[in-house]
Amino acid sequence: MSTPTLGRPAIDRETCAALDAADPLAAFRSRFSLPEGVVYLDGNSLGALPRDTAAHLQRVVTEEWGTGLIRSWNDAGWFAKPQTVGDLVAPLIGAGPGQVVLGDSTSASIFQASVAAARLRPGRRVIVAERGSFPTDLYVLESVQELLGAGIPLERRLISDDGPTLDDVLDDDVAIVVLTHVDYRTGRMHDMADVTRRIHSVGAVVVWDLCHSVGAVPVDLVGADADFAVGCTYKYLNGGPGSPSFIWVAEKHLPDARPALTGWHGHANPFDFTVEYAPAPGIERFRVGTPQLLSMSALEVSLRLWAEVDFDAVREKSLCLTELFISLVDARLTPRWGVEVVTPRESARRGSQVSLRVSDGYEIMQALIERGVIGDFRAPDLIRFGFTPLYTSYTDVWDAVDVLEDVLDSGVWREPRFARRGTVT
Amino acid sequence: MSTPTLGRPAIDRETCAALDAADPLAAFRSRFSLPEGVVYLDGNSLGALPRDTAAHLQRVVTEEWGTGLIRSWNDAGWFAKPQTVGDLVAPLIGAGPGQVVLGDSTSASIFQASVAAARLRPGRRVIVAERGSFPTDLYVLESVQELLGAGIPLERRLISDDGPTLDDVLDDDVAIVVLTHVDYRTGRMHDMADVTRRIHSVGAVVVWDLCHSVGAVPVDLVGADADFAVGCTYKYLNGGPGSPSFIWVAEKHLPDARPALTGWHGHANPFDFTVEYAPAPGIERFRVGTPQLLSMSALEVSLRLWAEVDFDAVREKSLCLTELFISLVDARLTPRWGVEVVTPRESARRGSQVSLRVSDGYEIMQALIERGVIGDFRAPDLIRFGFTPLYTSYTDVWDAVDVLEDVLDSGVWREPRFARRGTVT
Repeated sequence: MSTPTLGRPAIDRETCAALDAADPLAAFRSRFSLPEGVVYLDGNSLGALPRDTAAHLQRVVTEEWGTGLIRSWNDAGWFAKPQTVGDLVAPLIGAGPGQVVLGDSTSASIFQASVAAARLRPGRRVIVAERGSFPTDLYVLESVQELLGAGIPLERRLISDDGPTLDDVLDDDVAIVVLTHVDYRTGRMHDMADVTRRIHSVGAVVVWDLCHSVGAVPVDLVGADADFAVGCTYKYLNGGPGSPSFIWVAEKHLPDARPALTGWHGHANPFDFTVEYAPAPGIERFRVGTPQLLSMSALEVSLRLWAEVDFDAVREKSLCLTELFISLVDARLTPRWGVEVVTPRESARRGSQVSLRVSDGYEIMQALIERGVIGDFRAPDLIRFGFTPLYTSYTDVWDAVDVLEDVLDSGVWREPRFARRGTVT
Repeated sequence: MSTPTLGRPAIDRETCAALDAADPLAAFRSRFSLPEGVVYLDGNSLGALPRDTAAHLQRVVTEEWGTGLIRSWNDAGWFAKPQTVGDLVAPLIGAGPGQVVLGDSTSASIFQASVAAARLRPGRRVIVAERGSFPTDLYVLESVQELLGAGIPLERRLISDDGPTLDDVLDDDVAIVVLTHVDYRTGRMHDMADVTRRIHSVGAVVVWDLCHSVGAVPVDLVGADADFAVGCTYKYLNGGPGSPSFIWVAEKHLPDARPALTGWHGHANPFDFTVEYAPAPGIERFRVGTPQLLSMSALEVSLRLWAEVDFDAVREKSLCLTELFISLVDARLTPRWGVEVVTPRESARRGSQVSLRVSDGYEIMQALIERGVIGDFRAPDLIRFGFTPLYTSYTDVWDAVDVLEDVLDSGVWREPRFARRGTVT
């Protein structure tokens, strides 16, 4: 079966199979446990399960916890895990060893980083954020503003692609700018180095949210001269549901960066049990309390897998997968169904997801999921598809568009069982 | 072998075995996986592994994550877990369903509760805490003070058993008092209802730290008219290393209680993805970001075990175990080795641990651990023994004292391999 394309050479399922056969990353798919009959395009929300995770976790539970008991805090290296596992994140974001530490939830880490960043610019009273950023960033920043502005209220300036833009709001009253590198809804990617330079030109500090970047696109925090970054590990990094966030702070800021969540694991000498707080010298000062070891152990497995990966190949395949998806949507869906690709077509501005604007997106996604193609819906009218080069194949892309076309053609999504109700994740 | 006691009837190992045979909680020991040849008296630091945990976690990993993937946020009830698992904590602390929610680390929850508590008394500028409280509480409160006092610096008043006392420092300038119900070093327990009443008499708000109480002693937060409470779940509750903390807020405060960590999981309508923060109506407003599901799943197993337990029997056995340990130390160790019991002898003031003051405590504890008796050391001179009625037997107590006596008599702890170095947990 071949499909007409608009100004592109025709592509069919056999071509996709040939691309899979030539894919240098193809072998990684067998390292994941994926359910039969499912095309999983939601790894940008919850990554798939690495095959080694269950056995490793079993060992941690029965041997390290069950047999080692309290001794494992030293003997199994538990106490240092937020740093040793953080060191496995570092190469994925352009950071060196000893520069990344794992945190609690991403929201807590955004709080932790944003307060520390704002405290570096005590005379300034403006926080800039994006209207379209994942909401938790905005919610957390409301709280940061209220706490830091207890004396003089801070001002919030929200930017968006429709304006006001970053350049509209930047002035020397701006303390920090909190930006999401890859937009969770549209997949639009900022030019980190360029944006950072513009922020620095007014003397402000940038906090990068890498939730939809790490493991998806190249990130070079040191190369971009960034200041702070946080990210999540349960999406492209496959750490498991709710696996811990991470936080990175530029070395030049570390001596002056003061965290707000001053738990004992970030203390200079936690086991001296002193009455007064004194921050640890390095990035470990951003640790909070006792880390959730079991979740962290699952993450460690997936990061060891990532250590084997050639990241250039990941980016190249990611762009091919998203390009393929976009061209198939253009050819087969847009003309007849008015489906709009909202993700940038320019590869330098695209993350590893493609979002489509379509009415009744919720119902259409539910019908897709019933047919085994799993993406997700973001209100009011976007359906999202994440492409994870370690386990997404070119034939997955073909099959997903095939099923989506069939769902649209058949009108099955209009059936009452797909109607929206209750919580939507 | 019988041992002389001071004014008490003689007790021997056979008597301990008889007590075990008559113990109504004895069957629970088989529900835990304990290593051979170990007397584990550190469940007040890291609880033992329930036998059901590994299999449950395996199922969560392979079925809920591996097969269910993103769908499990709804289908497996993941999104509601911080509340549904919180409901399993509630009966252990005298709270009702819908009143407890799980958090990130205990330190983050102390921050979350303390900011909310202090905001209920905006005109007041003093925070009272205990000099001897677990240090993370003090470190976090330093940060709370700095953040809330950005306009008018808050004052800190530290109390201790040596003075100044609570009554010395209470006045109508006090906003909040943060107290540890059971002291982590000495095992001394406050009278929660009485202390709460004294704090309320000056119009202040109390935050109870239940880390060394929950699962160890009876706690009745509602009965004591308490305001806020936080606690940890990896000690007596056996949730696993770093399992999530919990937070409780009195119903009367909930409408006005404003969290500082305003993550999207605490939003009134998280999946509306609105730009402005609006707290959820109930206790779930104290949620932060995506919970660490694997760690939370392990905790759920142990809490289901706790749901089978008669808590009156736990307290009764706890007092018998600690009483037995104290009387054996009094009889066998104090006269010859000057070991001092620092834990209150009055049962109403005692948690479920006994601490001994002894020089060279670190080295002695290392020698004990080598002999299979696991307690821990807290600087400068305390060795701690936790008694967990679900899996500690009376013969364990006998054997622990036996080995401790032998270690002291032999002087083995003076050998260089037991010398202190590096991190001590």
